[in-house]
Order: sequence, then structure tokens, then C-alpha cells
Amino acid sequence: MKKNLTQAYRDVRQYTEQLCKPLNVEDYVPQAVDYASPPKWHLAHVTWFFETMILQKHLEGYEVFNESFNFLFNSYYQTIGKRAMRAERGVMTRPTVGEVYQYRQHVDVYMAELLAGEVSQELEDLVVLGLNHEQQHQELLITDLKYVLALNPMAPVYRKDSNLVADHNADSEFEWLSFGQGVHSVGYQGNGFCFDNEQSVHNTYIQSFEISTSLVTNGEYLAFMKAGGYENFNHWLDEGWAWVNKFEVKSPLYWQEVDGEWFYYTLAGLQPVDPDAILSHVSFYEANAFAQWKGCRLPTEFEWEVAAPGLDWGKRWEWTSSAYLPYPNFAISEGAVGEYNGKFMVNQMVLRGASVATSEGHSRLSYRNFFHPYFQWQFSGIRLAK
Amino acid sequence: MKKNLTQAYRDVRQYTEQLCKPLNVEDYVPQAVDYASPPKWHLAHVTWFFETMILQKHLEGYEVFNESFNFLFNSYYQTIGKRAMRAERGVMTRPTVGEVYQYRQHVDVYMAELLAGEVSQELEDLVVLGLNHEQQHQELLITDLKYVLALNPMAPVYRKDSNLVADHNADSEFEWLSFGQGVHSVGYQGNGFCFDNEQSVHNTYIQSFEISTSLVTNGEYLAFMKAGGYENFNHWLDEGWAWVNKFEVKSPLYWQEVDGEWFYYTLAGLQPVDPDAILSHVSFYEANAFAQWKGCRLPTEFEWEVAAPGLDWGKRWEWTSSAYLPYPNFAISEGAVGEYNGKFMVNQMVLRGASVATSEGHSRLSYRNFFHPYFQWQFSGIRLAK
Amino acid sequence: MKKNLTQAYRDVRQYTEQLCKPLNVEDYVPQAVDYASPPKWHLAHVTWFFETMILQKHLEGYEVFNESFNFLFNSYYQTIGKRAMRAERGVMTRPTVGEVYQYRQHVDVYMAELLAGEVSQELEDLVVLGLNHEQQHQELLITDLKYVLALNPMAPVYRKDSNLVADHNADSEFEWLSFGQGVHSVGYQGNGFCFDNEQSVHNTYIQSFEISTSLVTNGEYLAFMKAGGYENFNHWLDEGWAWVNKFEVKSPLYWQEVDGEWFYYTLAGLQPVDPDAILSHVSFYEANAFAQWKGCRLPTEFEWEVAAPGLDWGKRWEWTSSAYLPYPNFAISEGAVGEYNGKFMVNQMVLRGASVATSEGHSRLSYRNFFHPYFQWQFSGIRLAK
Amino acid sequence: MKKNLTQAYRDVRQYTEQLCKPLNVEDYVPQAVDYASPPKWHLAHVTWFFETMILQKHLEGYEVFNESFNFLFNSYYQTIGKRAMRAERGVMTRPTVGEVYQYRQHVDVYMAELLAGEVSQELEDLVVLGLNHEQQHQELLITDLKYVLALNPMAPVYRKDSNLVADHNADSEFEWLSFGQGVHSVGYQGNGFCFDNEQSVHNTYIQSFEISTSLVTNGEYLAFMKAGGYENFNHWLDEGWAWVNKFEVKSPLYWQEVDGEWFYYTLAGLQPVDPDAILSHVSFYEANAFAQWKGCRLPTEFEWEVAAPGLDWGKRWEWTSSAYLPYPNFAISEGAVGEYNGKFMVNQMVLRGASVATSEGHSRLSYRNFFHPYFQWQFSGIRLAK
Repeated sequence: MKKNLTQAYRDVRQYTEQLCKPLNVEDYVPQAVDYASPPKWHLAHVTWFFETMILQKHLEGYEVFNESFNFLFNSYYQTIGKRAMRAERGVMTRPTVGEVYQYRQHVDVYMAELLAGEVSQELEDLVVLGLNHEQQHQELLITDLKYVLALNPMAPVYRKDSNLVADHNADSEFEWLSFGQGVHSVGYQGNGFCFDNEQSVHNTYIQSFEISTSLVTNGEYLAFMKAGGYENFNHWLDEGWAWVNKFEVKSPLYWQEVDGEWFYYTLAGLQPVDPDAILSHVSFYEANAFAQWKGCRLPTEFEWEVAAPGLDWGKRWEWTSSAYLPYPNFAISEGAVGEYNGKFMVNQMVLRGASVATSEGHSRLSYRNFFHPYFQWQFSGIRLAK
Repeated sequence: MKKNLTQAYRDVRQYTEQLCKPLNVEDYVPQAVDYASPPKWHLAHVTWFFETMILQKHLEGYEVFNESFNFLFNSYYQTIGKRAMRAERGVMTRPTVGEVYQYRQHVDVYMAELLAGEVSQELEDLVVLGLNHEQQHQELLITDLKYVLALNPMAPVYRKDSNLVADHNADSEFEWLSFGQGVHSVGYQGNGFCFDNEQSVHNTYIQSFEISTSLVTNGEYLAFMKAGGYENFNHWLDEGWAWVNKFEVKSPLYWQEVDGEWFYYTLAGLQPVDPDAILSHVSFYEANAFAQWKGCRLPTEFEWEVAAPGLDWGKRWEWTSSAYLPYPNFAISEGAVGEYNGKFMVNQMVLRGASVATSEGHSRLSYRNFFHPYFQWQFSGIRLAK
Repeated sequence: MKKNLTQAYRDVRQYTEQLCKPLNVEDYVPQAVDYASPPKWHLAHVTWFFETMILQKHLEGYEVFNESFNFLFNSYYQTIGKRAMRAERGVMTRPTVGEVYQYRQHVDVYMAELLAGEVSQELEDLVVLGLNHEQQHQELLITDLKYVLALNPMAPVYRKDSNLVADHNADSEFEWLSFGQGVHSVGYQGNGFCFDNEQSVHNTYIQSFEISTSLVTNGEYLAFMKAGGYENFNHWLDEGWAWVNKFEVKSPLYWQEVDGEWFYYTLAGLQPVDPDAILSHVSFYEANAFAQWKGCRLPTEFEWEVAAPGLDWGKRWEWTSSAYLPYPNFAISEGAVGEYNGKFMVNQMVLRGASVATSEGHSRLSYRNFFHPYFQWQFSGIRLAK
Repeated sequence: MKKNLTQAYRDVRQYTEQLCKPLNVEDYVPQAVDYASPPKWHLAHVTWFFETMILQKHLEGYEVFNESFNFLFNSYYQTIGKRAMRAERGVMTRPTVGEVYQYRQHVDVYMAELLAGEVSQELEDLVVLGLNHEQQHQELLITDLKYVLALNPMAPVYRKDSNLVADHNADSEFEWLSFGQGVHSVGYQGNGFCFDNEQSVHNTYIQSFEISTSLVTNGEYLAFMKAGGYENFNHWLDEGWAWVNKFEVKSPLYWQEVDGEWFYYTLAGLQPVDPDAILSHVSFYEANAFAQWKGCRLPTEFEWEVAAPGLDWGKRWEWTSSAYLPYPNFAISEGAVGEYNGKFMVNQMVLRGASVATSEGHSRLSYRNFFHPYFQWQFSGIRLAK
């Protein structure tokens, strides 16, 4: 296991830096919106996690790389002390990008030293948590970067060749899968890593339902738009309708109409909308309105979990109709690690699956992602149920 | 049934006016906050419901009392046309209070005429819906009025003798009731009236749990406050902690500290906090934080529904840990009536039970009340589970 | 002088109540916007001034009518203690309107007693200040009332017969009066009452200028509107242009277009815009943009003061191009009275003249009114200069 | 003259780049607050001015460097077309810093070509305007950079050796200079360059006054702070007092208290406050409150202009008590150049003099700088008058 852990550490850490290869120094700096962070911050924050949660506690004599970094790169953990305001991440010109890479290298050297010695179960668990944490930030790094680049009227290209651009359902035939009612067991049931919010396998009663084998495409969503979907309050939740009007939303994020044709910004630049590609970057409000317009609904997270083994999933985070709430017997861990998930269990909706931006090896049937219903900036899509 | 309906109509309508007996003309006018409405508006809006949904459609030759009222007293129904901004209800000095009472009388006369004739099932259903609607506004009238009067440094008295002031648990002994796991049937199962959001009885799997027989008292909550409950982020959801800090919340609504003693505004004026009385006017954030501090949690809405027959309930709206979501097979009705409940099924939490301000005959085991987690102005309290 | 003072007191106080004759109780309550106040508040606040500044200090043994009123009806005076938030004046349902009139009567009785005795110069000065203060609030009472009534879709009538509705230039011939350059003396030069901000007569150098004998009419302003005045940034100050766009301003306050015709709300109800009547309810931004479009400019306050004896003035508050700043040797008085004017000498523009809503006997050539450049709710108009 | 112009062009352009020598690439990117801009933007915007106002019009066959730059680097000029939102300058990662330097070089090459040919008076005037414009941005580049670096808890150093850090009055003796009343001529009277807002020499009548020979020091201001200056409303304009309370202002910008000692961020890093150095980074509200506390006042802009030849000035922008208004006969130029100054003549105060950050050769006795009264981020200080 130890060798695997060392290798896993190396792989995850290298993948983060590989994602940054196409960037200019300038790209590392800005924060376009308060819920997104600069690449520089992601690079440092995941490193800070290893330094603070692991090296400082488990490697004797370890000296922190820079005392200020605890303040600058603590994302949320209130237990650990003061932290920079989330909204000010984009004004921190120092440390420089070069210094952040030095920081990463410094921590990697000592992590290698630590992992070369005896590794307790507790330590292994923490390292695995740190790696999963870094994988989460790999996805955020991509989605946050897309947000910044999309604001630039020059529509800069991140990578020309990428599955991040546009992809399609495995099978273009639309089908309904049916399930009868009954008690099902849900929650993480394996022996590997999972987050605390997936734990405690438990029974749930599911009514009979049908679920679509494919995700909604751009073309299907365009039909909704052309049918006046954004102008008819009947399709929308009251709060969704207020959101549409306040922000004058007329399309998924990154879409723009030029002379009657729809284009969208992709990480390969501005492109005409491909009607056969899978829809992305919609909010829960939009997903729900589209489903209602179709005379369908979104699946619950447990319907999804039960049905998923028979579905082609992993291309979009799929909005469910379930609010993000604790599982029975959910217990908040002691200390800073306990602030990971439980603090956010109100006013968010569960997304299931994974997306084209999710790192390899970071998806599970029981995985519970969650965002506020108005967020569009993830690679989020729609699967219908009824 | 017809006689009963006429009588029921008369009873409900009169009770609304009885609630207003202690008011001065000035009290009918202001709107203290955008989510509360002036008494004058409540009086007229419930009347508008009968006029627009019933008289205009079912009483031939009926002439509306005043064309402007549709605009002024439509609360939400987007189907029915333009409506005044919710936040401007308090600046409408006309119609006067006297004119609003004339409006009520006008509608009552024609409703009596209508109900004296043949009453179809459809009509009866609409009248019963209108009466339940008016009962909901009876409670809102009281809670909104309390909000306005409480802002006045003169602490005006609404009624000296009232169960609205402070009340106690039936039994002062605290006890846990235990329930085993298994499948239960939930939802409205009777033959009477219920709202669309309670409909479609269905199975749900409930894990084993314990629930308290009594509601949390002011004294118990004071202990939380004295233990620094509002200063320790560990007890709070992240969003709750932000709410505490942004609004500098230090106590339930209407509480104020004077020279080290806690007082609260009640509808009988300013009074010292009674430690044995049942706690009221807490938000979901506070309820959840208190429960966490106690090492407990809030019950789910289905745990509550299963346990309630054995509980003393009806004194406070009890925050549950359930988000307000549609039941399986929930269907939105056609037309304006369909805008009643379904539009609000996101970002709100379910409260179960009823309160001292709830009108008689307007409570059920299956009743689902719902509010945003930051609202304190209802008579809302806490029951613990674990 | 004493007899005159008693009579003056009586006259001013009665005129306030006469203005309120056409009101319903409901009209006294609401506050439509934070810079306007309810009639009830005006009635009480001017009375509080006499009670606090005069009776409590100069009438031995005087007992305050109600201790809470100091908190409720102190408008600004920070010296005197806590005061209710300005924005919450409309939610105070108590004291009732009846109680406020009792308060007025109470104070009037004791003021009569006080004025029947020996009246020192200091006391006389304070009474005269109090009366001028009440006259200012008489005008505000009208303008604030108009704001509230105008929001009501029923367009209620305050008074059918009134010079407040629409009026015309004395002479419909437009003329330019010319003045040569030179040193002029400005500031209040008489022996009567004036505010501190008019005091200290001093020299000023005025360049040669021309000024219009008549005020701009609705018809002239309509020409500006029809020429696209609100759509062309060239006419506007940068801040004015931002104001136009943020609030989507398309006309003076109270104007609305119905099927291509312009109407305006007046205190006699909704009426078609009279092109020959004098324009009212424009902001400084609009006044300045109109002048620029005309190839003219607004007069400075000193140009106005020098030219006014030859003009027909008193129908509109006339926006000048002068910022509201202290005169040389302006000194802030000691104590609460000193908070009257000097505190506001930044970011406001001077208006000269008087309006149809100004109380008789409350206007002077040296009078300096002042408002933020975005305010439209006074009877404010435009006189051109070049 | 032509040779001089070429040389002047070269000098000013080089000085801008010299100011950027100490920067890292990261420092060029962020925008800390909407009224400040990133160094990258300043570098490009001043270049855009030469390209758009001069090369495109006066150099035949000139091809723009990049079409997108007009959108990205137009600061205000509404005449010229769409422009990026001011608040989004910090999220534009492209063009890169390297590309911006290429842009500068490109424009410099063609400007050199243009200036090597025949230079009309109109062209010369535009070039001189462009150079003065660039000098203004040199100062803004420094003040905006200071704002960003100061937010960084690492307190980065820009330059260790700099007059930008702390400087002193030429003569530590405080003295009053006296002036009698009378008519004075003000406005720019020379033959060189001046802005449109200084033009049209005209008479003004000045009352007798006294003015201080030295600027207020940190030590003097600390005395105000220690006397409770920020806690006593009596010293403040009403709007200033609201500003103090809303933003919890307790000191000049960049000051922080650490264990009872005051430090300030300077461009050489964090340093203890030097009581003998000249006070900097105060708002007009603070300047006015300090003066009032001292029993003095701020000079008017004309008092300053008359007295300045006898004063040691040029170290701080000195707040005056004059609002920024047009001079008599001020005329807005035709076209885009006309948007330079006149658009901003409302709600701003005049500052006179120059500061340690002002570029050499960019100061005059008649120079009128202007900012909103709440701005602290310029090197602004206080000179007393009475």
C-alpha cells in the first residue's frame, strides 16, 4: 500500500501541474467572481492542506515554508485561524506563481520523506483525503479558469484538443428505463475512500419511476429556448423566475447570440453551438424548468443511484431534485476535517455522476456533489425522469 | 353540507374581523418588511380571492367592487395579471380601511347569495380552499402585526389576555419517545380538505429514532446563549454563521437585553423572558445550532408525522430537518390555483405542527408549512430528535 | 412685537393643520421613500422642536407630553440623543394621529402661556426659528404627500382647486436680461429672520451674463424629450447619465406615457401634461442636460440673487449651477441649533427662489435651498442663463 | 519645437516603463477596487490614446495593432464606441504583459515616424495632450499599485529608496501667511499646456484670509485621533459621519494599529508612522473634520492659487473647500477630447498642488485636480486656512 500511496501522491500532484501547462503567468492571477478562485490559489491551497493537516502534525521538525501562507491559502477552515476573505483572492500578487511552484516542490519533498517512513492508518487516511481534495480542486481549477477566459472578448484558447469542448451521448437513441417501487439500500458500500457525506449505508423507499438513458442535448434545449422557455413563468419555480429576471438570463452560461446564430465559449475558443452535443452549464432552475416544460421531472438522488449502473454517466454533473441534507447518522468529524461537508447542508441541491472535467478515479455511484441552485459554471447537465 | 358551508364561510370571515377589533386605523397601514403585509392588505386580499376565483366565475352578472383591486390585492398569481410590487403594500393609503370593510361586506353579500343556490362540488372545493386560504392569512395577520408593533419603542399592547403571549409544555417532564425502523405511510389520508402539497399518500423508510415529548423552553435556550452559542461557529451551518454575523443576531427575534436582564416583546407588551415558557421566534439556523450544541438533531418531517400522535403539539411551528420538496406524483394544478404551493419548492425548510396563532380547525398531522431558513417572525420553535 | 409673535405662532401652527384637512387617517401613516416623511411625523416633529428647544428650557416646570416622543420625532439632532432611524418613520403606528393632534394642542397651550409672559430676545429668536422650521416642513408635508399619493394606481385627489396643480409664467414672452461684470454684495441684508447659511453679507465678482425672464415650460421640455434628450449621453454629466440609466429615467417625476400621450400626476389627480404650464419635478441632472442641449447653462446662485429683483420668481425652486458651500465666515452655532444647515455642505446643489408649495412669508432673495442633484420630488424647475 | 516634441514623447513614454521596472508579471494584473486600474491597463490605455486620437487620424495607412484593444482599453470615451466595464479590468488576462509592451513599441515606432514629418499645430496639441494624459496615468499607476500591494498581508516592497515613502515639510516652523481682501485674477495665464478646466482667466473676489505655510503632519493628525476625532460627530459633515460609520474608518488609509502602535503601509513596506512626516491618504471628509476640530477650515481653491507662490507646495494634493465646477465661459470641446473634464463637474471637490507621485513637469499653480470627497487613495493631505 505504501508504494501505491507514494505513487498515487505523485500522480495526483503531477496532474494538477499538467493542467496548468497551457497557462500564461497572467492567467494564474485573477478571480472573476467570488465563488471561483485563481489557478494560483488552487495550486497553493491544496498544498497548504498537505502542509497543515499532515506535515505539521506528522513530520517531526517540519518547518513551514512561509508563515503567511496559512492566512492566504486557508479556504474555509475556521478552526485553523484567520483567513483571507474569499473575495480577495484575485488581488494577491504575491507570492508569485514561481514561488507557489517552489512551495509545491518543498511540500512534495517532505511528503516523499514522510511517506518513505512508516505510514499509520490515520496518516494514510489523511493523505488519501488530501489527494481527493486536490482532485476536487483540479476540476474547480478548470471550471474557474473557463469562467475567467470566457469574460475576455478575445475568447482565448486553453487547449484546442480536448474532451472539455463538446461531447455526445454514447447512444443517440433516447430510451426510458423503468424501475418498480420498493426498499433500496443507498450510500457508499465499498472499502475504498469516500467522503463523510456518502457514508452510512441505509434503506430508502423508492416509488416506481422511469429515467432517461441519455442526457439532454443542446438541440433539445434550444427547442425549449425557441418555445419561449425563458419568457414563460409557468415553467419556473418562483425563485428561478426571479433569478431569470434579475440577471436577464436568456441561455445557458457562455452562450451568446450573434446575428441570430447561437455560439458558446469553449476551452477551445468561441464555437457555434453543436445541437447534438450534450448540454452543459445550466443551473438547477433551468434544469427544473426544462423538465417541467417537457412534462417530466428531475430524478431524486436515490433514483439516480439505483438506476446509474444501467446508464451512460460521467459526462455531466446531473442536477437531481434532492436537497443536500445529511444521511441518517451523519456525524461531523472532530476538528478541521469535520468542516469538510456538513457545514453546507442547507439551500443546496445534490448533483450526481461526474463530468468531463472530473479527474480520473474521482467518481463513484454514491458520490454527492452539491451546489446552490443558481450556479451554472460547473459542467452541469440534465437527465429526465418521470 | 350546504348549510355547513354557509356557516363555515360566516365563521371564518367573522373571525378575521374579530382579530382586528383591537386595532387603530393607523395599525392597518404599514408594511414593516417585504415579507410581511399590512392588516388592511390581508383583509382585502382574502376577499379578492373569493371575488376573483369564485364570484367572477360562478355568480352570473356579478360586478367587481372596484377594478383597481385586482392590481392592488393580487398577492402572487402571475396568471391573473399585473400586481403591485410586494414591497409597496405599505404605501397604499387608499382604499381606506373603511372601504376595505365595505369591500368585504359586498363580497360577503354575494357569496351568501351564491351559496344559497345550488353548490357544485367544484364550487364547494373552491370555497373551502378560499376559507383555508383566509385562515392562513389570519395567522399571518397576527405575526405581521406583531412585527410592526415590536418596532415601536412604545411597545404597544395588542391584547392583554391572550394565549399568544407565553405558554408552557403540557408536561414539564422531558422524555424521549423511541421508534423502530421500517416502512411508514405518510401524506394526507382523510376525506376532508388538504393542500396539494400533502397529497398522494406514499411509503417512506424511516430509520429508528427518538423524539422529545416537549418543546425547547426559553430557559433551555438561554443556557445555549450563555454558553456562547452565538459566538461559536462550530454549532452553526456555514450559511447560518454568515447570517448571525451579517445581522449581528444575538437572540431570538423580539428579545432585548436591558441591564443584563432579557426581555421580549409580546402582544401584551414588553415582558421579562419567562424561562419555563416555550421558546418562540427562532430561525432554522438557530434551531439547528441549538440541536447540534445539545448533541441532538431536528426530526425529519416524516419522523414528526409518525411520532406526532403521541406528542403534545400545536403550540409552535416546529422546524424539521427536511427541505420543502414535492411528494412523489405531486402535480401542479391547472391555472391560478396551481400557483399555490409548488412554485416554492426550493430553498425552504418544512415546519410541522401548528402554533398558538394558528386558527382553530386549521391543523393536521400531514400539514406542511414552509419558510426560508432565516425567518424568525413566525411562532416557530424547536423539538429535538436523535 | 410680543403680540405679533403670539399671532405669528398661531397662524403658522394653524396653517399646518389646515393643510391636513383633506387627509384620511390612513394618509398620515406611510413613508414612501427614505428621504420623505409621513404627515403624522411632520406634525409631531415640528411640535417636538418647540417642546425640546423652547418649552423644556424656558418654561419652568414644563413636563414633557410623552418621553418616547424625543426618540420618535427627533429628525437629525445628534446632540439631543438617540433617534429613530429615518427609514422607519412609516412603521410607527403609535402615537395615533389623534394623539399627535393632542400633542400639538398640549404644546400650543404651553407655548401660549410662555409667550404671554416676558419674552427675551433669545426666546423670540428661538420661536421665530421654530416657526420658520415649521414652514419648511409645511412644504415638505405637501411634497412628501404627493409622492405617496402618486404611487397609488387609483391616483387619489388631494385638492381639486389648487395652485399646486399647474401654473404659468406671468408673461409668456421669453426674454433675456443682461448684466455687466463687476463686484456685487450678496447674502441677507435685512433686519428680519434669516437662516445661518445666508448670513455674512460679502462681495463676489460676477462676470457679465444673461438670464431668462421666464421659467422653462412643459412644452419646451417635451421638445427636449422628443429630440432624444434622455438617450444622448452628450447632454449629460457623467453622473447624470449613470442616474438616467440606472433608474431608467425617461421623463420628469410623476409623468407617464399612456398610448403615446403624456400625463402627470398632480394633487388634483392624473391630468394630461399642459405644454404651457411651468415644468416641475426635474433633478439637477435633468436641468443641466436640458440647458446644455439648449446651448445655455444654469445661473450661479449669485447671478440669480443679483438678477432676481427683475424676475418673476417664486413658482419653482430653481436649480443653480452652484454647489452648496459655506459663505465666508460661516460659523456653526453652538449646540443642537448648530446642526441646522452647516452639516450638509457637501455634494448638494443650491436652489434659489421658492415654489407654489412654499408657505407665504417664507421666501427671500437670499434664501438658499439645497438638495442632492438626483432629487426630483420638490417643485423644482429650470431658468436658463448664458 | 519638433525636436523637443520627439524628445518629450520619448521621455514621458520611457518614464512610464521605468516606473514598472520593479514589478513582477503578477503585479500587472489585478484590479483591487473599481476606481483603480491594473498597471497593465494603464500601460495599454495611454498607448491606445495615441493610437486612436492621433495615429488613426494623422498617419496615413496606419493599421491598428489589434482591433480588440479599442474595446479593452478605452477608459471612458463614449463617443468612440463600446468599452469594457471599468470593474472588469482585473480579469483580462490577455493580452499578456509582453503583448502590451509590444503594443507600446508598435505605437512608439509609428509615433516617431509621424513626428519626424511635418507637425501641424493641431497635431502638436494632441501629442502634448497625450503626454499630459500619460503623466496623469503615471501617478495613477503608482497610487493604484500601492492600493493592491497594501492589501497583501505580506506587505511587499515596491522600492526601498523612494521619496514616495515619507517626507517632511521644508521648514518645521508652523506659520500663518495673511492676505487682504480684494479682486484677484485666477486661471491659467501662461503660454504652455493646460487643461480645459483651468482656462479662461477671470476675476474673483477673495475675502481676507490666512493660510498655513506647512502641511499637517502625522503627529498632528494622531492628536486628532487620540482626542477621539473619529468618535465625535460634531467635527464631521453629516455625509462624512455616515462614511466613518458605514466603513468603520478609524484612521487614514493604509494605517493599522498593532499592539497600540500605529504603522502604515508604504511603498517600501510596513513602517511605524513617522510623526514628523507629512500626513497622506486622507479623504475630504477627514480633512474637513480635522480642520474643524482645529478651529480652522480648508482654503478655497482661489485662496490657494493666490497664496501658493509663497508656499512650499507639491508634496501632497491639498483638499480645498471648493466644489469642482466649471469656470465662467468653460466650453466643452467637440468630440471625444471634450469628454475629458467637463463631464465630471458635480459632486467632486477640488484638490490643488501636486504630490510626491506627480510626474516632473506636470504641475502648475492653476492645476485643478478633483476627486469624490470619500477618496483616500491619492497622496492627499491637509493645509489649514482661517
